[in-house]
Amino acid sequence: MKQSISKKTIVYPHPVFVIGSYDIDGLPNIMTASWSGICCSEPPCIAVSLRKSRYSYENILFNKAFTVNIPSEDYVQQVDYIGIYSGKYVNKFQKTGLTPLDSNTVKAPYVKEFPVSLHCELLKTVEIGIHTQFIGEIMDVLVDEEVMNLDGTLMIEKIKPYIYDSSTRAYYGFGRRLIDAFKAK
Amino acid sequence: MKQSISKKTIVYPHPVFVIGSYDIDGLPNIMTASWSGICCSEPPCIAVSLRKSRYSYENILFNKAFTVNIPSEDYVQQVDYIGIYSGKYVNKFQKTGLTPLDSNTVKAPYVKEFPVSLHCELLKTVEIGIHTQFIGEIMDVLVDEEVMNLDGTLMIEKIKPYIYDSSTRAYYGFGRRLIDAFKAK
Repeated sequence: MKQSISKKTIVYPHPVFVIGSYDIDGLPNIMTASWSGICCSEPPCIAVSLRKSRYSYENILFNKAFTVNIPSEDYVQQVDYIGIYSGKYVNKFQKTGLTPLDSNTVKAPYVKEFPVSLHCELLKTVEIGIHTQFIGEIMDVLVDEEVMNLDGTLMIEKIKPYIYDSSTRAYYGFGRRLIDAFKAK
Repeated sequence: MKQSISKKTIVYPHPVFVIGSYDIDGLPNIMTASWSGICCSEPPCIAVSLRKSRYSYENILFNKAFTVNIPSEDYVQQVDYIGIYSGKYVNKFQKTGLTPLDSNTVKAPYVKEFPVSLHCELLKTVEIGIHTQFIGEIMDVLVDEEVMNLDGTLMIEKIKPYIYDSSTRAYYGFGRRLIDAFKAK
């Protein structure tokens, strides 16, 4: 039996991404975002929705760039912190012990300790409601050598990404491999 | 050591959603989509990117509505099939044995067997590149009673959502609960 739970932003999985940007003084900042996903294959683009009140909002508009960093579950506590507090009031790199590195391709910092980072130029903004969607063109992807297979694919078992459950407000790891994709007949 | 893998649409996790729509003859169709994510809290909205060549593209424009269905891993084979073949040539409900039900709120079908479905009105379209992004306002969410806790939250353990790994092209289940969100100090 189906039951309505009304208008809710509940899907499984929500991703957990850490968005890197410089503020107008050039200081690196990070925020946690889950209202996000890939939105185009060519040019390769990712969409991230932010509220106007977020510190990163002005940062990204100012620099026309941001990074999307994929944290490993080893950093779940730090990333939870990054999602609660604002860069207006606290230096989140300093507080969490994470290390900002300059992107070689866009004007934004990325997180050294995280295994995968997407380096994006702001392509367009879309006003929706209380969120503004930033569509970033992915100019480069950096990965830790330790998570790469010899054929260039990535090892999810070493990346250890995790997901956000917005219904019970908790984080979950990923599980076992089910099947290969695009094989069904 | 970081290594560039160039411009790729690789993030962890990609979601696996099944998009429901009616074609211009009123026949229900489903497609699998991973270029998607929540994009606004108020109004609650979800973005789904489609290529113009997809059968669902015209369907959604015609009816100004679609559903986003969250499959359980029990249906991973069927959903893989739904992502490969086009509704132009095959009735995917019939082929997979899944059951289309009429949404009470929008002009789109949803999948009876899947535990969660979002019922969306098309709010706007955004041209990006080879993909067009459909932004849907979530008008209702239906869930199976069996996956609901008494307090109205949902049981991820019973929903059994899964994720797509675009690097090795495989599906993975979700794993263990890590920590509660929004508690870090």
